[in-house]
Amino acid sequence: MTHTSHDLTLADIARHLNVALEGDGDRPIRGLATLKEAQNDQVAFLANRAYLKDLAETQAAAVLLHPEHAKNCPVPRLEINNPYLGYAQLSQLFDPLPMRDVPGIHPGAVVAESATLGVGVSVHANAVIEDGVVLGDGVVIGAGSVVGADSVLGDDTRLHANVTVCHGVVMGQRVILQSGCVIGGDGFGFAHDGGQWHKIAQLGGVVLGDDVEVGSCSSIDRGALGDTVIGNDVKIDSQVQIAHNVTVGDHSALAGCVGIAGSTHVGRHCMLGGGVGLSGHLTICDGVQVTGMSLVTNSIHEPGVYSSGTGAMSNAQWRKNAVRFKQLDDIAKRLSRLEKHQRGQP
Amino acid sequence: MTHTSHDLTLADIARHLNVALEGDGDRPIRGLATLKEAQNDQVAFLANRAYLKDLAETQAAAVLLHPEHAKNCPVPRLEINNPYLGYAQLSQLFDPLPMRDVPGIHPGAVVAESATLGVGVSVHANAVIEDGVVLGDGVVIGAGSVVGADSVLGDDTRLHANVTVCHGVVMGQRVILQSGCVIGGDGFGFAHDGGQWHKIAQLGGVVLGDDVEVGSCSSIDRGALGDTVIGNDVKIDSQVQIAHNVTVGDHSALAGCVGIAGSTHVGRHCMLGGGVGLSGHLTICDGVQVTGMSLVTNSIHEPGVYSSGTGAMSNAQWRKNAVRFKQLDDIAKRLSRLEKHQRGQP
Amino acid sequence: MTHTSHDLTLADIARHLNVALEGDGDRPIRGLATLKEAQNDQVAFLANRAYLKDLAETQAAAVLLHPEHAKNCPVPRLEINNPYLGYAQLSQLFDPLPMRDVPGIHPGAVVAESATLGVGVSVHANAVIEDGVVLGDGVVIGAGSVVGADSVLGDDTRLHANVTVCHGVVMGQRVILQSGCVIGGDGFGFAHDGGQWHKIAQLGGVVLGDDVEVGSCSSIDRGALGDTVIGNDVKIDSQVQIAHNVTVGDHSALAGCVGIAGSTHVGRHCMLGGGVGLSGHLTICDGVQVTGMSLVTNSIHEPGVYSSGTGAMSNAQWRKNAVRFKQLDDIAKRLSRLEKHQRGQP
Repeated sequence: MTHTSHDLTLADIARHLNVALEGDGDRPIRGLATLKEAQNDQVAFLANRAYLKDLAETQAAAVLLHPEHAKNCPVPRLEINNPYLGYAQLSQLFDPLPMRDVPGIHPGAVVAESATLGVGVSVHANAVIEDGVVLGDGVVIGAGSVVGADSVLGDDTRLHANVTVCHGVVMGQRVILQSGCVIGGDGFGFAHDGGQWHKIAQLGGVVLGDDVEVGSCSSIDRGALGDTVIGNDVKIDSQVQIAHNVTVGDHSALAGCVGIAGSTHVGRHCMLGGGVGLSGHLTICDGVQVTGMSLVTNSIHEPGVYSSGTGAMSNAQWRKNAVRFKQLDDIAKRLSRLEKHQRGQP
Repeated sequence: MTHTSHDLTLADIARHLNVALEGDGDRPIRGLATLKEAQNDQVAFLANRAYLKDLAETQAAAVLLHPEHAKNCPVPRLEINNPYLGYAQLSQLFDPLPMRDVPGIHPGAVVAESATLGVGVSVHANAVIEDGVVLGDGVVIGAGSVVGADSVLGDDTRLHANVTVCHGVVMGQRVILQSGCVIGGDGFGFAHDGGQWHKIAQLGGVVLGDDVEVGSCSSIDRGALGDTVIGNDVKIDSQVQIAHNVTVGDHSALAGCVGIAGSTHVGRHCMLGGGVGLSGHLTICDGVQVTGMSLVTNSIHEPGVYSSGTGAMSNAQWRKNAVRFKQLDDIAKRLSRLEKHQRGQP
Repeated sequence: MTHTSHDLTLADIARHLNVALEGDGDRPIRGLATLKEAQNDQVAFLANRAYLKDLAETQAAAVLLHPEHAKNCPVPRLEINNPYLGYAQLSQLFDPLPMRDVPGIHPGAVVAESATLGVGVSVHANAVIEDGVVLGDGVVIGAGSVVGADSVLGDDTRLHANVTVCHGVVMGQRVILQSGCVIGGDGFGFAHDGGQWHKIAQLGGVVLGDDVEVGSCSSIDRGALGDTVIGNDVKIDSQVQIAHNVTVGDHSALAGCVGIAGSTHVGRHCMLGGGVGLSGHLTICDGVQVTGMSLVTNSIHEPGVYSSGTGAMSNAQWRKNAVRFKQLDDIAKRLSRLEKHQRGQP
């Protein structure tokens, strides 16, 4: 995909990052690329030593790198202590989306009269804003998205297309919701009686902090009584499920396909790998990392890295080993008997 | 989130539950809360002995509890044999959603002329009702939802916003579909020939019984020839995938992120924990429970609780153990050799 | 569900498959069914010897089968080398959807003036086509679907209802996107600095080849710099997550709930079972099959079948064995010590 020029020069880039530039500031820059693929109107970055070999041969207009690699850079350079952060900052300059936002309400959108809209709000085609909704300044509502009654969206929040925010959801500033995600669907609560399920109306809401992002097709259920609460700067990937009354602390990141069962509390600065499952009613302390597809059934009280499961092997090898798993307790007992016998306790 | 008052008194609450009230019936009640958090205009409940300690200090207007705990209740009480069921029943009184339903078709909605609508149907903004659809009495279609051609929805069924019901889906009464769920997408059927895939049109439908609930972003695929069938009172959480020609028996409950492969039959009164996966073409008998993230690759013919996998441990501990899993067959054989040697069969 | 007749005769069926017919060509055929359930106006097929027992008693109007089973067929037969492929081909004749497509733009749809539409395009109610979009000939856009700015859809591509295609997505011909899927949401990219996350704008796109199918509620994220690329004839089931910059080779098939982390490359003719997880930055060679719910954390360089995990057993049995998993390294070491002792090395 070719991205249209944003009419930026290399000097603009340096100024945006507030770094000194060694090289021709007038060179037009049309985008970013990897060291290997960058052409002479693109800026590249070196954020990982594994790519040092690509630096020597890069054709980039300039390279964002740590000063320690300056001497190895064959093209103009932009020295910065955290080149990956610099790349993140530059990437925003080339995002085509914000350029397309036209403040105003598309005639195909439906906005309730009782809704309150801030300055510069953009509501795209066929979106629906229900009664009592409050949209902060600069909010963008993508095509086909629905914001349920009485929900409150902070300034500069963006809903991509076909997002659903149910009623009574409260979110901070600069929240980003990717397409297909659902915030505030009912939690899974039923009383069992006489062999039947009796629905418990989910009367709580969902609260999202500032700078939260939620990925495509993810769901965050509303609380049963209190709220489901996602802290500030929490980043949630695609296909994630967060059940009712879960809380996630500030700055935590949840990779794709994570599932968190009801009333579990995840601390601050936690990182859950793809497909991780947390049982309900657990407490996970700050600073916990869980590796991909692990199952956590107990609370975790010490920061660190946690794992479960086993990695893939050839099916032939796996069949032989997996069948032994069912014998594991027996194996352990037989081993203990042999040890006793060896020690003269037959 | 504060829920607006529904102008109920404590006497109304007692009447709704058909229980005797000890206390001031005129007290206005604005909602429900936990024993710990309830204020003096909220009703709390005691459904689990673990919360007995909170009972002593509750500030609730009244507490729903089993008669055996009556003597420990410091505030007015509502005695009931199944307090959790009572809580479920009361919760419905405070759900703000039904109060917002205005029968009628929003001008932004599109309803095919050939559709048949019952009494009191509510079709919200930008919803689409296609040809030949039948909506029973009291059906509510949320904003942006689409009901495909020839689908039939029973009385008092509610689709939240942005739900998709594909063509030819049949559902019973009081079905609830949360936002983002898809009922009746094509099953995953292809014939393989000459290294290529050839699509098999999915000609079956989906049938949902009475009182079925499907969570946010869940999908139930249509059958290849016959139908995919979900029984009465089956409760399905968010992010669940049910493949073509699966059947699920009455009163079963599927927690978040469950995946069921094609043509598997799940019995009645089954409970599948979060993230459980069932292979295709299995039969799971009535009364089976499977714990979270277990993989079931064989049919189950006895009621009971089933599990697989291993729980998380520290990554350092896990690395040492997981690598041994690949040696498990070897370990078992070496143990057998030692046992033979010990028995004098070298 | 009863499917309306398409006014086909048995002779039409035989002609469509280009096979000889033994029997009454004038017989009207209203659909397909299994050998067991077929009535005398339905065609059945025998594609698996396990169903030979049903052949003897079938009531079908005719049976599609391999010539080797011709002598066992009690009703008219259609002989074909790959009956399952024949079934796939016939199934298309009975799909009610294409008959309902009316070329043209529904008045409730919103199509940008700058969009380019081919011949015979059908845009259903409340769909949105944004600026600069190109829709090839015969494209169908389901109700409520959104096609983001500058996306290009090849001829005869079909989006079911409530699909989201974000901006700058390019897809080939005959692509099928099931309801609720999202193509081109942002990848999960953030730079970490000072305890905070800094969003990396996802500047790449998504490219889908010809004949790709994506299931309900699946998500394919756009690339960070380059594109996420799905090859020709790749079939993706429901609830699948494909992260940024993943590539999937031609003719591969991904079952439900698969998750592929960022920058992983999957080869051609691969098959990933339900719930399989692939870590990021891996290379999976051509011809790899991974069984359901396996976790792949290393690249695979040899074609074949791969697996991980353990199957479900009774919870009582599982508890005893799972606890031993945490002792596995200890068990292996103790076994080695016993072996040394037995060999006279105490």
